[in-house]
Parts: sequence; C-alpha cells; structure tokens
Amino acid sequence: MARLLPEALTTLAINALRNAGALQSIAESTARALIYADLRGLSSHGVSRLPMYCAQLRNGRVDPAAQPVIVADRGAAVLIDGADGLAYPACDLAMSTLTERARQYGSAVAGVQRSHHFGVGAAHLAALGARGLVALAFSNSPAAMPAWGGRRALFGTNPIAAVFPRRNGVPLVIDLALSEIARGKIALAARDGKPIPEGWATTRDGQPTTDARAALDGMMLPFGGAKGAMLALIVELLAAALTGANFGYEAGSFLTEEGERSRIGHLFWAIDPGALTGDETYLSRVEALIEMMLMDDDVRLPGYRRERLADAAQDEGVEIPDALIAQLKGN
Amino acid sequence: MARLLPEALTTLAINALRNAGALQSIAESTARALIYADLRGLSSHGVSRLPMYCAQLRNGRVDPAAQPVIVADRGAAVLIDGADGLAYPACDLAMSTLTERARQYGSAVAGVQRSHHFGVGAAHLAALGARGLVALAFSNSPAAMPAWGGRRALFGTNPIAAVFPRRNGVPLVIDLALSEIARGKIALAARDGKPIPEGWATTRDGQPTTDARAALDGMMLPFGGAKGAMLALIVELLAAALTGANFGYEAGSFLTEEGERSRIGHLFWAIDPGALTGDETYLSRVEALIEMMLMDDDVRLPGYRRERLADAAQDEGVEIPDALIAQLKGN
Repeated sequence: MARLLPEALTTLAINALRNAGALQSIAESTARALIYADLRGLSSHGVSRLPMYCAQLRNGRVDPAAQPVIVADRGAAVLIDGADGLAYPACDLAMSTLTERARQYGSAVAGVQRSHHFGVGAAHLAALGARGLVALAFSNSPAAMPAWGGRRALFGTNPIAAVFPRRNGVPLVIDLALSEIARGKIALAARDGKPIPEGWATTRDGQPTTDARAALDGMMLPFGGAKGAMLALIVELLAAALTGANFGYEAGSFLTEEGERSRIGHLFWAIDPGALTGDETYLSRVEALIEMMLMDDDVRLPGYRRERLADAAQDEGVEIPDALIAQLKGN
Repeated sequence: MARLLPEALTTLAINALRNAGALQSIAESTARALIYADLRGLSSHGVSRLPMYCAQLRNGRVDPAAQPVIVADRGAAVLIDGADGLAYPACDLAMSTLTERARQYGSAVAGVQRSHHFGVGAAHLAALGARGLVALAFSNSPAAMPAWGGRRALFGTNPIAAVFPRRNGVPLVIDLALSEIARGKIALAARDGKPIPEGWATTRDGQPTTDARAALDGMMLPFGGAKGAMLALIVELLAAALTGANFGYEAGSFLTEEGERSRIGHLFWAIDPGALTGDETYLSRVEALIEMMLMDDDVRLPGYRRERLADAAQDEGVEIPDALIAQLKGN
C-alpha cells in the first residue's frame, strides 16, 4: 500500500485514462468522480475501476472520444446522449443543465442514454447540493437481480442517491444500491469458504442459497424482499425506459473486458426549494428534523462519516494498493 | 356484510361527508378516491376511513370548507396549500396542474402543504397514467417509525407510489408503504394473542419485540432495515421539508378524533415520456421489459390483480360491513 494525496492520485488517474486514448476533458471528469469515491472510503467505486475502464476504452467497448450531447429539450426535461463514452462527461453535462433549469423552472429532470458505469451517484449530486438544490439520481446497471418471483436476472442493483442541502455545513447525502448486499461481500465469503446469510443471493436457477460460491454464479436479491424488487422496477423504468437506454438484461457487463456495450441509462432530478416553500422555510425545516434525529445518540446523519473521511484524506492521502499503482502507471 | 355497487357506495360516502359539513366538491373528490381503494380490495384506505374523517370535519381538526390554492408557481414547480382540509381536493388540483405543466415543460413537481391523509397514492396518479404521463407520489404521515438507530418515532410509514403507462391496457402501478408491515396486521395479532415476527416493530422505548400488544404501543420498523429507514428520511424531506409541511413527529394523528391538525405534506412528480426518449420508444421499451418479466410464471405485474378486482367490483359491488353502513347513514 502507498498513501497518495488527492493531487497525485488525480495525476495518476488522468495519465492512465490518457494512455488508454481518452480525451483530456473525459479523463479529468472521470478522475474527479472516481477520486470523490476513494476519498470517502468507497474504493470499490474509485480508481480501482480504471484498469477495466482502460481496457474497454482500448478495445472499443467505450468510445475514448465520445462527446455527450443534448438530443431532446423541453425546458424542464432534457435527454443527453452519452454517445457510448464513459458516463462522467454526460453526467457533468446533466448537472450543469439541471442547475440552470431547476433555477429557471423550479424543477427539472435530465436523462442520460447510451451510458456506462456512473460510479457513486452522490458524486454527481454534490454539485447540485452545493448550489442549494435538492436532487435525486437513479441509474440502472447490468442485470444482477430477478423480478419478484422471477428466476432470471433482469434488473441491475439500480442505485438511488439523494442530496439535501443544509443551511450551514455539508448537505445530507443518501446513496444506496437496491441489492441486499454488495457483490464484493459475497466474493469475500466465497474466497474464505464461508456461508452467506439467507436473503443475500440465489443460485443460477433462482433458488435461495447460503453457498457463497453458488451465489457468485447466481443472482443478487433486492433488499427488503418484494418491496425492494418493486423499487428496482421503478428505477429500471425511470433510468432506462424513459431515456431509451438498455435494460439491465440487455447491458454488457462493466466488469469484463469483452462483451456488448453497456448502454445503460440514468435519470437525475433537481428541485429548487426556493420554488416551493422557499429557501428559508426549507432550511429551517431540515435543521428541525436533524435536531430531532440527533436527540438519540445512535442516530447518524447520512453521508457525514464519509465526509470526515474525505477531510482526513485531503490532508493524509488515500491508501492505494501497490499493484494497482503499477498497473495504472504502466502497463 | 352488504354488497354495494360503486354508484350506491358513492352516494353513501358523499352524503356522509355532506352531513359532516363538507362542501359538495370536497365530498365528491374524497368519495372518488376512497372508492378507488375499496374497489381494489384496499378497504383500510376506503370508506372505512369516513367515520374518522367526519368526526374531524365536525370538531374542526379538518376544515369542511377548505379551498386548496396554488401559493407558489415557477412553471415546473408549484406549491399548493391544502388549507387544512381533506387531502383530496388539493391532490386533484395537483394532478390537473401537473398534467398541463408536464406537457408544457417536459416534467414538473407539485407539492402540497397543510394536508391530511391522502389515501392510496396510486389513486391520484391514475389520472396522470391515463394521460400517458409517468408519475411518482411521496407523502409523509404521522410518526410511526424511528430514524435508523433511534428510539423515538419521527417518520411516518411514508408511502411511495408510481405509475408507468403502457401502450395498450392499464398502466403499471406500484404503491408501497415504507414500514415492514401494515399496522393492521399487528392489531390482528394482538387481538388473537399471537406473536409477531422480528423486524416488524419495537416496544415503546425502541426495543425490538415479537409481542404484538407491546408493538401496538410501540413503533413500526421500516422494511429492509437501514436502507428502508434512509428511504423514509428521503420521503420525509421531499414531502414535508420542501413543502413546508409538518414532519411525522409534529403531525396530529389521522386515527383519533382529538389532537392537533395533521398538516402533513405530499410531493408529486410527473414526466412526459415524449419530452425524453419519445412516446414510441418509451412505450416499446416498457413492453420489452414486461415481456421479459412474464417469461417467468411466478412474476406478477404490479397493480394488475387489483385492477381485476376493480373490474369485478364494478359489476358485482363491494362488501361493506353493515355496522359501517349504519354509521355512515345515520349518525
């Protein structure tokens, strides 16, 4: 392990992406989002993704020169074509457009089609929260979970993220995948030969299992049973049906070099509190709720532990495995 | 039990509301939403609510002459003051405004403040789905669940509903409360002296319990643990902080005659698929996903069982307890 300060990590990431053919602006946008994750302890969505991104940039599954473009626009609804590039430039365009449109019309949505892994949803919303906007993000992803009662993987783990600005200090940030557990935890159990709890996963043919190796070969289960499965359906329809993107079962994997293009979709939604109850009332209401939440010692405000990790990492750097550094530097 | 056809049930409901002082338009709007629920087998959100609505109309907790009004408007975001009336006229105004604004701007939100029990969220969205709009509804409700890690009830069971129109036939309808289970099921177990499963509820001081009577005196738990609790927080902030409404812990109960006014909030969101990927692509995408879902025998399309119940009830009526009919007729 080596500790890298954010600036060094950014240079490392940009160089790796540039070496794989990505345009400078694409490399910068991607590095920024991945390092947002690394600084917050979310290394599974940080620069550890770069070797696969670079492989897909090199073999043409991701276009290294893709330029996202607005292809539909009715004021408070815009559709962005990600043009088979990495997701981050398209998400940046969505955020800048939403900032302007939510102010103008009070609320707006931005869809993204022909996109790819968008990393941590909250990384995108942070820009909106910093400008005093409430925002939500929905993305589908390659198939990992069945419909409720189903025996085949149709939906992705389909993250939902939300940001709610506060009067002072950092916004509340909520970010959750709709699977009961991250696939990485099943992989760890399989490596260690340990069983997994019921409700995490199924075998390949949809039978519930506690065998981690069978689960790796099978499907993830939604958190919370039937209700979680309904949320996964909602996200699939918002992020893919409304944007004209691929559904989870049509999307090429983010995690293999070869395969079809992913072409998944995202939907972002921004609301200006000033257009509803007004900024002052909104901000007071949020503080009133937070005060009540904090009256119980064990309640934590969502996103705050990760913000403190990010503060520390700004000064002290982030641990990155030596093998990953070597891989990104060279080769 | 008596079987009442929809027309007779409507007359019964309107007369009961009129006798409690409600204006004709308020009585009609309320009857329509309650009977939507009764026709679909959701009797807990149907005319069984009327005795309590009428008691609250009579004692002034709900204003029988309230006229909802738009108090903020920036085009794609409007805020409606429910004016301490029953929720339904305000929700109707939200739906008619959203229909127009989603067409004009591509998407729009409508918040409602100073509101009351909004019944089945999907009952409101049905009007949007029938016009080809995708729509979601969020409402908070009087406190029933703790924040994650908390020991006091802060959030309501905070329903989320969604409607997705199809090319032919009725839209997909998803409607879920964020509690693990409906309070009514705990009441049934308490009546029968039976235990409840872990994860349904806590005692009054926040300890997990399987004792149904202790649970009735305690709190509901969110479905899916910490993730469900985060969704409840999102809904509380969308429905109440953005609209300037009461949070769950501030809201007077829907289920007691006496108490503070409820003054909870709702947020509705509508999107015109024609403003994003276009109606044709959206409708084709939805049919493609449905086709895949139905390849597994045990997968059910959300909302369809209830639509078939409604079809049957149109012809054959709905069973209403004699005691409820007597109560609504008389007294």
